[in-house]
Amino acid sequence: MKYYAYIAIERKEAILDPQGKAVEHALSSLGFREIENTRIGKLVRLAITASSPEAARAIAESASEKLLANPIMETYSVLEISDEPVLHAAEWEING
Amino acid sequence: MKYYAYIAIERKEAILDPQGKAVEHALSSLGFREIENTRIGKLVRLAITASSPEAARAIAESASEKLLANPIMETYSVLEISDEPVLHAAEWEING
Repeated sequence: MKYYAYIAIERKEAILDPQGKAVEHALSSLGFREIENTRIGKLVRLAITASSPEAARAIAESASEKLLANPIMETYSVLEISDEPVLHAAEWEING
Repeated sequence: MKYYAYIAIERKEAILDPQGKAVEHALSSLGFREIENTRIGKLVRLAITASSPEAARAIAESASEKLLANPIMETYSVLEISDEPVLHAAEWEING
């Protein structure tokens, strides 16, 4: 069966984020002076053929550890495993 | 008051994602043949000083439109507005 996964990959807090800083300066130049602490991570979406959602999650975590995230600088979290295509993160309802 | 926002920026489905394709090939070389349709988006986190969560959301949407997302190729969604620091997407509970 096919499962759809979203994985968030973020730099650890102690690691400088030059892309985030650049965006923060650009936002400030555009007049968005109320915005600060901009940090930019990656949102990876993939489809996984697996026998169960648990198996799909295990594959997503293994792929994150082996390729997607750099464990020295980044943290990853498998945000969602769904058996229906989630085409956009906008479809989520987030609590907490 | 300070609000913390997460914004997802994803390429539209019709737009090719070369980075996603490269990751998909790399995963396949590593033996992850059950993974397909890899697409990579951005996850922007920022802190916004605003008078209400609605005002913070409006600022996040305006920043997305004016700078963060390219409206021709990308869609954006303001995923969360929280009055507590959410340091990692792993803290979310997602439904749907």
